[in-house]
Amino acid sequence: MKKVPVEISARHLHISKAHLEKLFGKGYQLKPLKELSQPGEFAASEKIDVIGPKGMLSIRIVGPVRKQTQIELALTDARILGVKPEFRISGDLKDTPGEVTLKGSDGNVKLDSGVIIAKRHLHISKTDAKKWKIKNGQKVSAKVAGPRSIIFLDIIARVGDFTTAIHLDTDEANAAGLLTCSLAELDV
Amino acid sequence: MKKVPVEISARHLHISKAHLEKLFGKGYQLKPLKELSQPGEFAASEKIDVIGPKGMLSIRIVGPVRKQTQIELALTDARILGVKPEFRISGDLKDTPGEVTLKGSDGNVKLDSGVIIAKRHLHISKTDAKKWKIKNGQKVSAKVAGPRSIIFLDIIARVGDFTTAIHLDTDEANAAGLLTCSLAELDV
Repeated sequence: MKKVPVEISARHLHISKAHLEKLFGKGYQLKPLKELSQPGEFAASEKIDVIGPKGMLSIRIVGPVRKQTQIELALTDARILGVKPEFRISGDLKDTPGEVTLKGSDGNVKLDSGVIIAKRHLHISKTDAKKWKIKNGQKVSAKVAGPRSIIFLDIIARVGDFTTAIHLDTDEANAAGLLTCSLAELDV
Repeated sequence: MKKVPVEISARHLHISKAHLEKLFGKGYQLKPLKELSQPGEFAASEKIDVIGPKGMLSIRIVGPVRKQTQIELALTDARILGVKPEFRISGDLKDTPGEVTLKGSDGNVKLDSGVIIAKRHLHISKTDAKKWKIKNGQKVSAKVAGPRSIIFLDIIARVGDFTTAIHLDTDEANAAGLLTCSLAELDV
């Protein structure tokens, strides 16, 4: 049986260097608060007020800086802000809606794209991918047992220098009744 | 193939006659706003401020009045209020937490039980239950296809004078990417 950890991604944002400097000033560096499971990634101390057509949310930055600013929301969050993002894989930002303004201590950034709801995905190490014969981009399923058992279909495998884990957003975790990280049974 | 409608239950509350009168005054009658799919049930015009240890939500009453007051939340809502309800079938309120205060125009009600997260369930008419050989209390599964396909397991069948439909809460609907009501494929 292929048991895989399930991690819950709360809403967060990745920020470009240019946007970070516009928000917090030239040469600004993110302050790492907590290491995340994916190598090199960290939750930053910085949270940003993100203002949409309908509402506002305070959203934490996940570092390090990336090429493009990307806001990852759950559908619940999108409704609060009043935006209509698409289900996308991280980094696939072409023609995604923006419609939000980021407020920093030194300035604001109005986005014109980059708001997504992350498609559920499996980060998988090259070793595990080889062992389980999973190819990059392949769709797999996973069962989460518990008080609200669910089988998540269409989980996109991303093979790379990753720690093997399924990433769900908060809506998906709540639907499965997961209060903290858990294990799922992978079906390839 | 057994296709069944999926309906999304947003947070709502059922109210007892005694509590209704405490909130709005003696002899008060709920004002029906919209008929719901289950025979006799309606969304009332009345919304109540429900105050928990951490936050507040405005929650609509679903009529008619019931024997016991019952608040049905999604896990997301429970976090906002700061309460820890259990997954229960509607009406199964023994030893459920209260921890909330309802604010009406005429008075307040402090609950000591009745806050639940509804277990996903299938309302099923006696005719359909007979046709599909589904017994009251039996667990069934259902697949929701779409951009975020999911198989919901452990759906509890409730056979009765119902319109046949699966009821999911907003977290579950969001996890499946359902923006409005939809169809699921039942697996018995």
